[in-house]
Amino acid sequence: MSAEFDRTMMQRCLKLAQQAAGYTAPNPLVGSVVTQDLAIVGEGFHPKAGQPHAEVFALRAAGDSAAGATLYVNLEPCNHHGRTPPCTEAIIQAGIRRVCVGMVDPDGRVSGSGLARLRAAGLEVVVGIEEAACQQLNEAFVHRIQHHQPFGILKYAMTLDGKIATVSGHSAWVTGAEARAAVHRLRSVCDAVIVGGNTVRRDNPHLTSHGQGDRNPLRIVMSQQLDLPREANLWQVDIAQTLVLTNSGANPQMQDWLQHQGVEVIELPALSPTTAMHYLYQRELLSVLWECGGRLAAAAIAEGAVQKVWAFVAPKIIGGQNAPTPVGDLGFDTMTQALQLERLHWQQIGTDLLIEAYLL
Amino acid sequence: MSAEFDRTMMQRCLKLAQQAAGYTAPNPLVGSVVTQDLAIVGEGFHPKAGQPHAEVFALRAAGDSAAGATLYVNLEPCNHHGRTPPCTEAIIQAGIRRVCVGMVDPDGRVSGSGLARLRAAGLEVVVGIEEAACQQLNEAFVHRIQHHQPFGILKYAMTLDGKIATVSGHSAWVTGAEARAAVHRLRSVCDAVIVGGNTVRRDNPHLTSHGQGDRNPLRIVMSQQLDLPREANLWQVDIAQTLVLTNSGANPQMQDWLQHQGVEVIELPALSPTTAMHYLYQRELLSVLWECGGRLAAAAIAEGAVQKVWAFVAPKIIGGQNAPTPVGDLGFDTMTQALQLERLHWQQIGTDLLIEAYLL
Repeated sequence: MSAEFDRTMMQRCLKLAQQAAGYTAPNPLVGSVVTQDLAIVGEGFHPKAGQPHAEVFALRAAGDSAAGATLYVNLEPCNHHGRTPPCTEAIIQAGIRRVCVGMVDPDGRVSGSGLARLRAAGLEVVVGIEEAACQQLNEAFVHRIQHHQPFGILKYAMTLDGKIATVSGHSAWVTGAEARAAVHRLRSVCDAVIVGGNTVRRDNPHLTSHGQGDRNPLRIVMSQQLDLPREANLWQVDIAQTLVLTNSGANPQMQDWLQHQGVEVIELPALSPTTAMHYLYQRELLSVLWECGGRLAAAAIAEGAVQKVWAFVAPKIIGGQNAPTPVGDLGFDTMTQALQLERLHWQQIGTDLLIEAYLL
Repeated sequence: MSAEFDRTMMQRCLKLAQQAAGYTAPNPLVGSVVTQDLAIVGEGFHPKAGQPHAEVFALRAAGDSAAGATLYVNLEPCNHHGRTPPCTEAIIQAGIRRVCVGMVDPDGRVSGSGLARLRAAGLEVVVGIEEAACQQLNEAFVHRIQHHQPFGILKYAMTLDGKIATVSGHSAWVTGAEARAAVHRLRSVCDAVIVGGNTVRRDNPHLTSHGQGDRNPLRIVMSQQLDLPREANLWQVDIAQTLVLTNSGANPQMQDWLQHQGVEVIELPALSPTTAMHYLYQRELLSVLWECGGRLAAAAIAEGAVQKVWAFVAPKIIGGQNAPTPVGDLGFDTMTQALQLERLHWQQIGTDLLIEAYLL
């Protein structure tokens, strides 16, 4: 059995896993394949928290063919009783002979125990196949486990001269249709999208996936005072759920009105990106997409609520000494204090450029 | 003789021509190759205005081997007596049988006449080989001929959040060493670099090629009032020439002082990017590099003095609501008014991204 075949099967696992993107929180994206004599005899993926794990679906599909077979899975099989029985036992009982794993469980308390159980039962275990791709697919899950907060992505679209809107605040549209569709697809696989009150007042966004995916994220508005308009697309909760985060005791009348519209309102003792992310962690979200203006973006960055940046650059020049830019005050005086980004990746989307990078 | 051989020879012409980049103004960059039986028997390039044209060097090198040979040249041979005799006659007299030309002369008054002369003399003439590359190599020359002003390139370096400096104005450095070296190389092939008084006061730049090329551009400061510091690297004219453009009658004392340092001072009736470019056209410059701050950049763009943008994007975030951005006020209220850029090209230089594009 060649290493190349192993990699191909692991890529198949990742493709299967990806199908559930947006549905699994707080669980990871996992796909699994069972092979006999270089042929796939079963495959499956974890569709949603509370449903069986990927390995169980793959083993079920393989049936009797699992005896003596190889099982591929992008994440170490669980070895504990959660909402479902341990996958390690299911694998052993099915008679699997060899298990190929993409990456170990990121939870330091249990990582490696699934592999140890399989080895103790006499199975051959290989770890680290296509590991970088496996880590990336579950970067939100890994971050959540290790840092106890959701993975934050800051998305913005700016002109080639660095503006997200004109001096008067007009921003429709910086990027072209293809780039906007890419944002809609990203929304469909994020658990939530966050904006501040300014964005609601100024842009009146929908924050939905606009049909670029079969689900919508939870739409979140952070508002200190609840000085929000009563006419706003976000209050139409028949399309997608909306959650307003505010300070304890803020504007009870507006809270009542919002709740009457079907908008969920949660009071936090001191609203900030940190308290918001802590609440969203407890609510079991994996990933949140910051689509806010420069001021809230700066606060989110400063408080460690942003791990990744999705920056669109449009081939146009709008000008403006005081036109809004993507990130507000971070308190830096010298260029050497700038926050470094790493693992840059760029691609052309339509006529625009998308730069993806990670904050160090 | 295959089309591929023709293209290869034309690429050789462009490579030869490129060697004189920065030296030929107001003349174009031209290289020429003479071949016999698929072998190069002579080549040359135009080194500098007042020197012989590329064809003459190539024919001289070929000597008697020019009889019955093919001559390649990236620009239509001249057919008129300028500072040198017409190349068409030299080609005919050398006994060349076939002439391959990259592009016709951009001057509408004479374009095609060189080709017509060669054809009338019985030579086979092929036009348009590697034409796009030929046009690009001489884009500054073509622009100057067609628009009666030098070709303007706006260069800036910004963070991924669109700033060229911190809120306090600190900008050393936005980009890394490789990107800065690329700017130094660009300076070495531009005829002039322009900044405003603010840049002199704030950054005290050298604006030289720092050894990344064997020449320096003319360094130009545009200053309405001549409120310039007496201590400035640009007044050290032993390294490179400096020209200050100012308004008629501005600060005669400072004018005297600057001239005493060896700095050239030219008064224009109403200093602006337009009057500056008109003066530099008369001075026979092909290309000028705008390395100014946002305010002057906006004026240069608004007045049509910028044809191309060289935008570096550094993988860092500095933040700042009021941090300077690359382009100041253009008077646009809605995003739909933004100036479109076309023919985007991007590449990674060190850790930074360089986006090159043309203003429509």
